[in-house]
Formats: sequence, structure tokens, C-alpha cells
Amino acid sequence: MQYSDSILKTPSSFIRNILKVTDAYDVISFAGGLPNPISFPIDELKQSVNDAIDANGAKVFQYSTTQGYLPLRQYIADKLNNKQSNLNYTAEDVLITTGSQQALELISKVLLNKGDGVVIEEPGYLGAIQAFTLREPSFYGVTLETEGLNVEQFKDALKQPNVKMVYTVPNFQNPTGLTYTKERREEVFEAVKDQDVIFIEDDPYGELRFTGEHLPYIAAGKMTNSVVLGSFSKTVTPGMRLGYILTKNHELLNHVETAKQATDLHTNIFAQYILHQYLTNNEYEAHVEKIIALYKTQADAMLAAMEKYFPPYVKYTKPEGGMFVWVTLPEGVNALDKFTEAMEKKVAFVPGNPFYTDKESVNTLRLNYTNATPETIEEGIKRLAEIL
Amino acid sequence: MQYSDSILKTPSSFIRNILKVTDAYDVISFAGGLPNPISFPIDELKQSVNDAIDANGAKVFQYSTTQGYLPLRQYIADKLNNKQSNLNYTAEDVLITTGSQQALELISKVLLNKGDGVVIEEPGYLGAIQAFTLREPSFYGVTLETEGLNVEQFKDALKQPNVKMVYTVPNFQNPTGLTYTKERREEVFEAVKDQDVIFIEDDPYGELRFTGEHLPYIAAGKMTNSVVLGSFSKTVTPGMRLGYILTKNHELLNHVETAKQATDLHTNIFAQYILHQYLTNNEYEAHVEKIIALYKTQADAMLAAMEKYFPPYVKYTKPEGGMFVWVTLPEGVNALDKFTEAMEKKVAFVPGNPFYTDKESVNTLRLNYTNATPETIEEGIKRLAEIL
Repeated sequence: MQYSDSILKTPSSFIRNILKVTDAYDVISFAGGLPNPISFPIDELKQSVNDAIDANGAKVFQYSTTQGYLPLRQYIADKLNNKQSNLNYTAEDVLITTGSQQALELISKVLLNKGDGVVIEEPGYLGAIQAFTLREPSFYGVTLETEGLNVEQFKDALKQPNVKMVYTVPNFQNPTGLTYTKERREEVFEAVKDQDVIFIEDDPYGELRFTGEHLPYIAAGKMTNSVVLGSFSKTVTPGMRLGYILTKNHELLNHVETAKQATDLHTNIFAQYILHQYLTNNEYEAHVEKIIALYKTQADAMLAAMEKYFPPYVKYTKPEGGMFVWVTLPEGVNALDKFTEAMEKKVAFVPGNPFYTDKESVNTLRLNYTNATPETIEEGIKRLAEIL
Repeated sequence: MQYSDSILKTPSSFIRNILKVTDAYDVISFAGGLPNPISFPIDELKQSVNDAIDANGAKVFQYSTTQGYLPLRQYIADKLNNKQSNLNYTAEDVLITTGSQQALELISKVLLNKGDGVVIEEPGYLGAIQAFTLREPSFYGVTLETEGLNVEQFKDALKQPNVKMVYTVPNFQNPTGLTYTKERREEVFEAVKDQDVIFIEDDPYGELRFTGEHLPYIAAGKMTNSVVLGSFSKTVTPGMRLGYILTKNHELLNHVETAKQATDLHTNIFAQYILHQYLTNNEYEAHVEKIIALYKTQADAMLAAMEKYFPPYVKYTKPEGGMFVWVTLPEGVNALDKFTEAMEKKVAFVPGNPFYTDKESVNTLRLNYTNATPETIEEGIKRLAEIL
């Protein structure tokens, strides 16, 4: 059997393969990317299920619309409008997806022919690289600096033929934990505003800011071809696979709806009712504050331990939110070799390799801090320092 | 913005568009394809949610594996093995999908390059045509006769270059309600068994047989390239989007897993826990018997009314299970014209057009009987007869 070209090119998840060896009970793992279970409001979700079934009966179990549950779409539009005054989203601008991973896949499916160009942060989000690769595009990587995309490289990338979309994660990016500055957001917008491309801002971590000020979107509210992606995976539950697409480009959204119909008909409507019930009957903001407080403690512990134990030639990012720290080793050091050494010390991380579209050997690695106590984090960083 | 070739070719759902006009309160609609709400065991599902949360806690809300919840995969393998003795499925042969619609999309994604051949029943399942079209294949339609695929046409179709897969719905097919006979199953298997193609048997309705004997799969248990698709949408709940793929071809299944990872990471794990809890703690078989008894009454009412009111030159199928009857009007009559006339009489159906890959004007139409009382069905058929 000859399989399709696109599936043969698509990387299976490097991270999931790594997790198989890092799962041993005595390994301190910074390799995962899971939210801490504290972020699941279990009792409230259980109550919400019962209330949603009692209030709506059979409807929560029947087939439903491809766009998603209207009150949930309205809630999402309102939520974003309340956050930033120039957005003016309506429910008609929102489509519910089976996690925001599906949003990436659907948008690439409706935009990309083989060989079309995708501008992406380097390093970039692995799940996006996987989803886009199914369309066999040309990737144009633009260096992600401490302040955001390198603007000169970005302008050059936009000059490449067939560029159809730009993919960014402006807040607490995965894998780097970096956040675009206000100034860089404006420069990136100036560079892209007159181009015929779809500009995606994927924002799964945006609410999890533990220091500094909330910053406005780059293009949302200012450009029809702006697309914002979001998710409830990091603040309510990833298990229910509930994400969303927001855009004022309704031609694009109609195509996404057709693609979604052909892909899975609609997102689990039972889960949509539960989430809406939960969001409208609980103190969601207070719940998010709890998650933020925990992650801040964990991030502080990791950064303090790195300050204490890491040699000065090892560089790392200082996230203002989210779940990750990005470490850069000296030039020429191979992160994959270090991974093997680290596993001997019973500490795990993700080597940077899968976050690049074109690099074989890299000197970078990703650390997650959301699933360990401050004490364990310090011990893990100490072990890691021994091999750096 | 120039969208992708594949999305521009993909039909948006003709049926969903039709449903927008047939939804008026005074229309008798045979146009839908929804299961009757009696098929949702509401109280039992509610209990199952509470039990699943109490027993498993945070795990039901966390990220999970792409293959699906292991006990549910095991349940599905056992269920099929109990139905037919030569299958020998294990949990390793099962992958859980976001509805069986997603199974169609994933399999075509891992198999098809643009222009590759797909053999499909004519008329065929609309959702499959939509999913496959995203890969821009060549369709080879084979006439679906009362006994199953026309074998001579099928053999010819298999000789076409680049045929990668064959798609069949052997039991109570959508749209025709037809079921392959035992003999025809064997002939189809003989024709395909030595070919290098994936043979798909999609079986969403198989459990809903109200007359005649259960028949064995065509290729499952006899051929590594056999794929069986199934769903809980017609017997428990479609709203939770839970389907599955079974195959002994693990190379194929691994590719499907990679594609699913890139598409939506995994199927809603909360829903998988609930379904497994429901299936293992309730009288599932007795529940299915209730659905069958209802659908039999409704199908009988429709067939009796057609016998009574339809002119003899109008032909129709006599389903042994499932949800649909297929009507063939005299040659040259355009079903779309009849749809307009029928709507004036306040009765609705789906014209046959979207079930063909290459026909503009057809004299066939689909009737659904699962969502009306016998009295309403009789009245609707009477109105329909007036315009035939």
C-alpha cells in the first residue's frame, strides 16, 4: 500500500514519543505540556453536567450545527470584546472547533495548496507544524526574538511567493514562553496590514499572565484577514477538546465550516452545553486567578533554581505567563545528546528539534514547570545543571 | 484571498441547506437523518457522567492518548468479536474517532494523493463523498443494486489506475436503505481479496435490524486491508461524536494516528469515559431493542402508506433496518422539481442529487422515517403521492 505524500511527510509527535521514556516514576519530568489538574474545576463541571441535562434534555445528545452552540459562540465574542474595546465580535464571527488543534488543521485545509507559503515563528508551535505539514506547504521561518518576530526577516518572508498565512503565538509562546512587546506588535502589524494573507494569533495561554500588563492583539480588530484562535484547554479542561476560531472574514469562516462538516460534522455538543453552563454559573475569573497563582509559584521556583545552579553561559527566557521556559545552550551543543545525559540523571526535558521546520541539530530545549512542586523543580534543575 | 483547490471543490452540505427550509413547524419532514431522541438513554447517561467523574476524578478532564480510552477500545473489539467468530480483534486494532465522519476523513488523508481512485457505491453516502473530496480523488461509482454492488462494474472499477480504497455501507445503506445479500457479500469479497486496496465497511446502522438475519461482514476477519467503521451515534448519542476504526493493518492505523494527532490530538476523553461507563453498567442490548421496535413501526407505516398511495410506476426500497427508504421516480422526472412541489404541499424529502459524484439531474429521493409518528408518516406520504 502506498500512503499519501502528505502523511509520509508529517512528523508523528516527537514529544509523545519522548513522554514514553520520561514517564518512569523516579524521573523528574519537565518534558510534558499538560495543565496542572488544579485547572479543572471538577465539582463545578459535575454540577454543570447535571444542570445542562436537566435544563435541555435530549438536545444535549442530538446532532447539532457545525458552527457550534450559539450561546457559547456569543459568550466567546462577548468575552473578547470585554477584554479589548476595538474588537466588536459577534456570534457570527465565531466557530467552535474540536480543540484549537483542529482550528489549525481546518484553516490550513481551506487555504493551502501544496507548496503554498506559511510564515511561522522559529522556533514554533509543534502542533501547528504538524497540522500545516498535512498540506505540504513551504515554511518560511522567522526568528522569534525576546521582543517578538524579527521584523526585517518577517518583511522578507512576506515577499516570498504564495504566502497565504502567518502563524503567531504572541503571548507566552509554546515552546519559548516569550511574549511580543507592545511596540513589536505594532511593527508586525504595520508589516502585514496591506498584504493579502491570513494573520493568525493563536492565544491558548493569554489568560495565564502572572506578571506584567495584558497587551492588545496584533491584528484583531484592525484587519479583516485577522484570525484569533482560543481554547478552554488551559483554563477549564483539555479533555473536552473545545477551541474556537474568531474572524471577521466570513468567506474564510464559511469555507472553514464546510471543511469542518466534512471532517467531523460538528464539535461534541454535550461538551459545549456543559462548558457554557459552567462559564455562566461560576466564578470563572476567580478560578483562573487560582491557576495563575500556582503557575507563578512554579515559574518563580524554576527561574530561581536556574539562577542559582545554571552556569552563566546557559541562557533562558523569563516568561510573564503560560507554561514554558526555553533554554539555549552554547553554540554547538546538541540538545539531543544532553537529553540522553539528563535521563541518566533522572530528569527530562524536550530537546528543541521538533519546534523547527528545517533543523537537524539544535542547542535549545523546552522546560515545563506546571506539574511539579517548587521543591521538585529545584531538585530537577539542580540535576540538569550538573550536565550542562 | 485564493482558497485551496480542495475546499473549492468540496460541496457544502446540500442536506443542511435543505433542512433550513424544511424546518417550518407545519412541514412534515422526511428530509432529516436524525436518530429519534428515544435512542438517547438520558437518565442512564446522566448517571454515567456522575459515576465516571467520581471513579476517575481529574483524569476525565485531562489530555489523553490519540488512540482513545483503552477500556473503550477493548469493549469495541470484544463487541465485534462476540458478533462474529472469525474477527479476533484486540484493543490494538481500534482507534477512537470524533464520530465516524472523522474516520472517513482521516483514512482518505493518509491514503489519497490528488487524483487517486476511490470506488464508491452509487448512490453513496454524502458524508463520505464530502470527506473524500477534500483529497481531490477520482471517484469510480459502482451501481448499488437491491442485492449489493453490481459485481461486473465493481471488477471494472478495480482495474482503474490508482485505486486506493473501496467504500461500502453494507447494512441499511444511507441513502438507499439497501442491504447486501450474503451471496453478494461473498462475490464482492472474491473480487477484491487479491487487490492492493483498502476495503472499508462503514456500519453505523448495523445494530438496527428489524427484520431478517444478521449477515457477516464482507471482508473483516478475512483480509488485512479490511477496515470496519462504527459509531455510537445511532444507538447512544450522536452529540458526543464517538466513532471508531477497526483494522488489522497496523501500518495504516499508525498513519491514521499521526493524522489524528495533527487534526485534533485526541477524541474528547470525557465523553469516552462516559460512554464506557454507560455501556458496561446498563442493559445496552435491551436499549437497542427499544430503538429497533420504534423504527420498525415507523418503517412499516411508511411502506404501508407508500403501498396504499403511490402510483405503481414509483419504485422504492424495503429496508430491513436503519433509517431510510429510497424512492425512484420514472425516468426523466427531476427530483429537485418535485422537491419544490412537495414543499408547497408542506412535505419534505432529500432529492437524490448529493448522493452521486457526477450527476446533475436525478429521478431519485431519500425519505427518513425515524422522526414522525405513524399517523404523521401516513399523512406525509399521502401528500407526497399527490405530486408524484
